[in-house]
Amino acid sequence: MAQKPSIPKGTRDFSPAETAGRNYIFDTIRSVFRTYGYVQIETPAMENLSTLLGKYGEEGDRLLFRILNSGDAFSGIDFDSYCIDKRTNSYDSRALSAKVCEKGLRYDLTVPFARYVVQHQSELSFPFRRCQIQPVWRADRPQKGRYREFYQCDADVIGSDSLLNELELVQIVDRVFGLLGISVSIRINNRKVLTGLAEIAGFPDKVVDMTVAIDKIEKTGLEAVEAEMREKGLSEEAIKVIEPVLLLSGSTREKIACMRTMMGGGSASGIVSETGLKGLDELDELFGLISAASVSQEVVLDLSLARGLNYYTGAIFEVKANDFQIGSICGGGRYDNLTGIFGLPGMSGVGISFGADRIYDVLKGLDLFPESIAESSRILFANMGDRELRYLLPVVKSLRDAGVACEIYHEHSKLKKQFDYAAKKSIPFISIVGEDEISRGEVNVKNLTTGEQKSFAASDIEHLISFVCR
Amino acid sequence: MAQKPSIPKGTRDFSPAETAGRNYIFDTIRSVFRTYGYVQIETPAMENLSTLLGKYGEEGDRLLFRILNSGDAFSGIDFDSYCIDKRTNSYDSRALSAKVCEKGLRYDLTVPFARYVVQHQSELSFPFRRCQIQPVWRADRPQKGRYREFYQCDADVIGSDSLLNELELVQIVDRVFGLLGISVSIRINNRKVLTGLAEIAGFPDKVVDMTVAIDKIEKTGLEAVEAEMREKGLSEEAIKVIEPVLLLSGSTREKIACMRTMMGGGSASGIVSETGLKGLDELDELFGLISAASVSQEVVLDLSLARGLNYYTGAIFEVKANDFQIGSICGGGRYDNLTGIFGLPGMSGVGISFGADRIYDVLKGLDLFPESIAESSRILFANMGDRELRYLLPVVKSLRDAGVACEIYHEHSKLKKQFDYAAKKSIPFISIVGEDEISRGEVNVKNLTTGEQKSFAASDIEHLISFVCR
Repeated sequence: MAQKPSIPKGTRDFSPAETAGRNYIFDTIRSVFRTYGYVQIETPAMENLSTLLGKYGEEGDRLLFRILNSGDAFSGIDFDSYCIDKRTNSYDSRALSAKVCEKGLRYDLTVPFARYVVQHQSELSFPFRRCQIQPVWRADRPQKGRYREFYQCDADVIGSDSLLNELELVQIVDRVFGLLGISVSIRINNRKVLTGLAEIAGFPDKVVDMTVAIDKIEKTGLEAVEAEMREKGLSEEAIKVIEPVLLLSGSTREKIACMRTMMGGGSASGIVSETGLKGLDELDELFGLISAASVSQEVVLDLSLARGLNYYTGAIFEVKANDFQIGSICGGGRYDNLTGIFGLPGMSGVGISFGADRIYDVLKGLDLFPESIAESSRILFANMGDRELRYLLPVVKSLRDAGVACEIYHEHSKLKKQFDYAAKKSIPFISIVGEDEISRGEVNVKNLTTGEQKSFAASDIEHLISFVCR
Repeated sequence: MAQKPSIPKGTRDFSPAETAGRNYIFDTIRSVFRTYGYVQIETPAMENLSTLLGKYGEEGDRLLFRILNSGDAFSGIDFDSYCIDKRTNSYDSRALSAKVCEKGLRYDLTVPFARYVVQHQSELSFPFRRCQIQPVWRADRPQKGRYREFYQCDADVIGSDSLLNELELVQIVDRVFGLLGISVSIRINNRKVLTGLAEIAGFPDKVVDMTVAIDKIEKTGLEAVEAEMREKGLSEEAIKVIEPVLLLSGSTREKIACMRTMMGGGSASGIVSETGLKGLDELDELFGLISAASVSQEVVLDLSLARGLNYYTGAIFEVKANDFQIGSICGGGRYDNLTGIFGLPGMSGVGISFGADRIYDVLKGLDLFPESIAESSRILFANMGDRELRYLLPVVKSLRDAGVACEIYHEHSKLKKQFDYAAKKSIPFISIVGEDEISRGEVNVKNLTTGEQKSFAASDIEHLISFVCR
């Protein structure tokens, strides 16, 4: 009996139009990465679970897709010893899955990259700039805009702490969204400044709680942020130190100057933070480089930007579309010890990740995809019979060799049917070559939009191409 | 403690040079597919096991990678009821894995394509030409040249039985290998002729045994093939009918004529095969179209070609490199009922699949990769300090915007170190801009291979580009 076909929840088929749109995004990003000396690598979809486990927190471990060991995965396992409650057949799932699964699907591109760098360090020259565009898998609860399989497009440079790298990532973002025609604002912060802020507030150990709270200011407002900080144990005095930072306005230069005063001992607490001052130096230098490089898109210092990720140690980036509400479409930052877990300490790196799914939605929503990418074929050659077909074959081959996408209707049938096919597939030109054209050695072409019709010598492919491709 | 990083056996990391080589292959194939009106789709890595199981035979089912259900995969399972032998803790693995795994990794692109066509039939216009370039996974025993994760590059057209489709697939093969610079021979056969051969031999039910034996003639020779047929139960009389076909020589036209006599009752058995005659008509028409379309690579009729696959019903293709021993690098054929298993009967299709891994090995082995693809950056700008850097930023940006891959050395350090970096990464040009150049408004560039050196006005990017990209 026939099965009703379906795909696992949270996964997607991509239609020809969607795939073309996605390729347009990937190709654009890849071409820009390349001009900045980033070279592409690929890593396997499956990694050893020992590589993945413990790298994404408890939640991440739970969301890994695990691959059942091949062969006889269950033999020799004493299931009773994993049983928690015999009546309900409850088992210690974590221990049992570790027993029957040794591999998992990659959860992001960063951990496989760290693993790659350590494993291949002798083959690489540092600083090593790599880009990687591959799918990742997460067993998240599927919901609108969240999928269990999605692509990440990452660029990271490892083995250099120069802020030139940060500048170049900003330039890459600038160029990619410039080419895609999306107006964005690039928000920048520095993790050291957030650390400094926690220090001058007198709660150096609460930097994570503080940044998690601050990160929400755009969504929930000042009062809710302060309430959350209180809840997390920050004192009223601490909040008094932090509040002016949240309300800071003015130019980037002014913001940095004001923060410098505070970090230098000028806040309500009078505490000096060397880390905070170092972060401000970095921001100062980076913004100086950005103006020297004449970045086109808006770049702003946003001291509330935290991006939740604990492993950033310097710059933090986030990019939002100005004309489309969808959250962050690109983000990243500097981390100081990514490869340490795999035995290669002291490698500083900085990277960004483009969110292809959201970028797709922005391009679609703002109607920014170039028209040409959705097109399957530029011209349909009607099939008028065997003799006509043989006459056309070399003509069509020349067009294809020149890169023009063509179709010959697959069988000799009524012209109406062939026209309908062209219309349904939005093929913009049709050619109907019959006995007359053959006797004159010609090929005629009709523009199906304007109705314009032209004849070309079968040997004059060049003019035919400029007619159908102009 | 640091882990020694590794990847699962049978999987691979692809270095920048390998990824560039593979992209070159994929891009070439994709660009040719496109000119023939093939549109690209993508399907999820994970399919429901119900979609995959039973489609690849018993062996295939065993080689599927299964994904452990997310959440608590084991709760509520009564393991005792799956136990075969309590002393050795042996379990019914097949039944148990069906219980804890609902999804599997795709095993090829053909079954997901069939599933896609049925699921999305209302959105498609037929004939539907699709290409798909994605990895597949098989839990095969890893060995040289056989991997557990590898890419397939498929093109299939479904919903048309016109032989024009077969011709176009031959043209695609011709063009792809022409562009890659690989000399190939394209071997063609027709499954109906093989069926006819079994019929006139008097063993119509032994067509599979017969073709499996015949398929080995190049490797093992005539005697071994005949011995295998005898072993499979074919009579001496049958072998007498088959033998002349295996020894057939001459032009394609002569071979077809000779086979036509045999299928028409002129063989030792005197049996007539209508199916065989139909297959010969198809071959005749296809070879006629091929000569009308002036295919450049060698195309031969090979009546021993069987390709083991049971689902082919018409044309069978196989492509081998002429100057490199590696087996088939591309193959395919016509199938008549691919979508029937998913409830859409009567759709005839024909497709080919390019073997990217083997094509990579051929290009590498024959040194056919273009030099440019291995290159990371075209030019390295030395870092001579902050002032020089700021002077260079707009120059470098213009080069990058024009598509030239550039790097600025990440930090101000000894020139020797910077030159070494360029050498190690095979960057062919270096630019060292100091105070003199800045005062003259110039940028100087040195070709590291020839030693040639030139200066350009910082505003004259065009001439700089033609110097570094010629």
